[in-house]
Amino acid sequence: MNRIYLDNQSNTKMDERVFEFMKPFFLENYGNPQSAYAFGSISKDAVEEARLCAANLINAKPAEIIFTSCATESNNLALKGISAALKVQGRHIVISAIEHLSVTNAAKRLEKDGWSVSIVGVDKFGNIKQDELKNALRDDTILVSIQYANPEIGTIQNIKSLVEIVKNKNPKTIFHTDAVSACANIPIDVVDLDIDALSFSSSVIYGPKGAAALYLKQGTKIIPLFDGGTQENSKRSGSENVPAIAGFGYACKLAKEEMAKNAADMTLLRNKLISHLPKNIDNIYLNGATENRLPQNINFSIEFVEGEALFLLCDAKGIIAASGSACASKNLKLSPVLTALNVDAALGQGSIIFTLSKYNTAQDIDFVLQEFPNIVKRLRDMSPLYSYFLKTGKRKEAGPGTDYDDHHHDEEEE
Amino acid sequence: MNRIYLDNQSNTKMDERVFEFMKPFFLENYGNPQSAYAFGSISKDAVEEARLCAANLINAKPAEIIFTSCATESNNLALKGISAALKVQGRHIVISAIEHLSVTNAAKRLEKDGWSVSIVGVDKFGNIKQDELKNALRDDTILVSIQYANPEIGTIQNIKSLVEIVKNKNPKTIFHTDAVSACANIPIDVVDLDIDALSFSSSVIYGPKGAAALYLKQGTKIIPLFDGGTQENSKRSGSENVPAIAGFGYACKLAKEEMAKNAADMTLLRNKLISHLPKNIDNIYLNGATENRLPQNINFSIEFVEGEALFLLCDAKGIIAASGSACASKNLKLSPVLTALNVDAALGQGSIIFTLSKYNTAQDIDFVLQEFPNIVKRLRDMSPLYSYFLKTGKRKEAGPGTDYDDHHHDEEEE
Repeated sequence: MNRIYLDNQSNTKMDERVFEFMKPFFLENYGNPQSAYAFGSISKDAVEEARLCAANLINAKPAEIIFTSCATESNNLALKGISAALKVQGRHIVISAIEHLSVTNAAKRLEKDGWSVSIVGVDKFGNIKQDELKNALRDDTILVSIQYANPEIGTIQNIKSLVEIVKNKNPKTIFHTDAVSACANIPIDVVDLDIDALSFSSSVIYGPKGAAALYLKQGTKIIPLFDGGTQENSKRSGSENVPAIAGFGYACKLAKEEMAKNAADMTLLRNKLISHLPKNIDNIYLNGATENRLPQNINFSIEFVEGEALFLLCDAKGIIAASGSACASKNLKLSPVLTALNVDAALGQGSIIFTLSKYNTAQDIDFVLQEFPNIVKRLRDMSPLYSYFLKTGKRKEAGPGTDYDDHHHDEEEE
Repeated sequence: MNRIYLDNQSNTKMDERVFEFMKPFFLENYGNPQSAYAFGSISKDAVEEARLCAANLINAKPAEIIFTSCATESNNLALKGISAALKVQGRHIVISAIEHLSVTNAAKRLEKDGWSVSIVGVDKFGNIKQDELKNALRDDTILVSIQYANPEIGTIQNIKSLVEIVKNKNPKTIFHTDAVSACANIPIDVVDLDIDALSFSSSVIYGPKGAAALYLKQGTKIIPLFDGGTQENSKRSGSENVPAIAGFGYACKLAKEEMAKNAADMTLLRNKLISHLPKNIDNIYLNGATENRLPQNINFSIEFVEGEALFLLCDAKGIIAASGSACASKNLKLSPVLTALNVDAALGQGSIIFTLSKYNTAQDIDFVLQEFPNIVKRLRDMSPLYSYFLKTGKRKEAGPGTDYDDHHHDEEEE
């Protein structure tokens, strides 16, 4: 059976060129980069070359890159490390309602430890409500963390405007952005955007697992999560994972060179799926942005089906998708992101996410367009709710006031 | 030039069988272990198989293993995570004077955050002073962290006695041990020893970089360093580094099967170096234990030479050694471990550490025995202090009361 991998928000297949680049660091060049012997300097040079490539991808300086082990570590380091470093200045932070769990739950932890956290909402397309952000900012707000683009619904924020709002209120408030899904898919320039901290990760940009980074603007204070040796300028102690860091750096280099082409290719495939699926499936609704959407993201809610069943039947056909964000996929509750968009709970349960990579082809998309409507049909054929709807044009057990012409709750009702 | 790698305390060369085992998880089986699709379950199974192997190596249960990214993370998670979880019970912790920097500096961080830290000293062989430990324990001591064996001086602690002392005072005090250097070199049984938490790492047991573990006895409370998804039972969120974890598990499996033979082989080589070097070098002193010493460790202080020069001339001959603990090797100050042993500062500066692996051969050792005395001679030929000593039998500028017959300060003088 052919496998069509469309869960690239979880992680991408590694580029074979990246693996070739990493290989010598497994069995041959295994010296400690912290040691002064010549054998160690091969490892050290590889780490520093990777730092340069990672910095170049986002227009940062190499000294502003802290290598970590995963995106979750980068986000936790940013939220907890910056909050700890600035706690004498204030103990209020702001995040959005559609952050990755590693930001949301790091903020919850800070809240337990005495910080105050404000959560800024989004409109039905997933864009931050700028007025809410303005109103959330306080004199003691030391940190704002807003995702660059959402992996689940693809919405790309207007980061420049958001940074301006924050800096206009207080230029000292640190602006962090989780750019894990955006990085290497759309161009990012931390200087132009005036960002203080930014998380990005290897395993979703065709690099290996086990490496990620936190960009931290020169002069920004942080307390490390790991204390120990002097690695990463004492901001992240621990022996360097040299092969993974080298691979990450090489993936950044390739991304810099090939991003534009990859994004253009994925955008074509994405648009085809988004425009063609509704032609063969009724009562299907796109979640997230219609403009400023990640080139790789497709997210549909489909009425009268369960997302879990949809997902499993896709799997049985070799179509690997996601029914929620990568880390929460075991969770059967409605995704917090769809909740934040005010998607109706019953409808949100029937959601599926396809995320593309540069490896997906037109044939992959044609296969999905051919098979997916059949999968939906098969599930709906078993649904008494759907047969009732077909017979009567009405929805059984739908609560009063629910308006399915728009699949979002009327926001004023909330 | 032949390379004789004797810096295995920093990291070992990966076993080629381990690399072969990891390979499919790079380019083929890259699915997210947290996802319900079949492709993800290959990754999930690999992680769980690795968990079983890691648990088996130390006689733990699989559910008691938390995978992390490196030893420094394991130690920080243990110290900070357990302290945070138990802070309502007490805010006093005890460590030893010869811990790895990741323990020492994590404890320093806790001290800054309001914890009280006691440091227990060691005798001149590096053994914990049991009376000091007894006296350090208080009613509010929630955590004791003492290294299983020291990577720098090879001393293996009598962990069973130390645990008994702690548990006799208060059975609820958590006993953590950094077993990074001990694990896979000597047998460890966490049940027999009644240990609550234990750190061990892949990159020093012929496994890949990027994976380590914290054993945490069932029921032991911990606050994670990373919040986010539900990975590692929510004790260490973040996408799993599947290839590294799989490789670590396989390295644990091999260690379980081959440890006894490897240790016996290394012990022979170690003993040969320890007994033969002093035959061709005068004024050379073994640091650390004479009994209960790690099979892989050799540490000598050599009078009238500088460790840094020794280290570099060794490197030039292809002999890769260490002049301090891996993370501190850039630091020219006397190693804190040698300081704790009361080694004279001038003498301690002339120290070198050779750590063996299963890959070292009798030929390697013969080469060191042949070349190393020449290196020492070359350095001493340039030393006015040594020529003065040869002429007069006296040490120039040696402070009053310094007794070089024993290379330790008289402890009562301190």
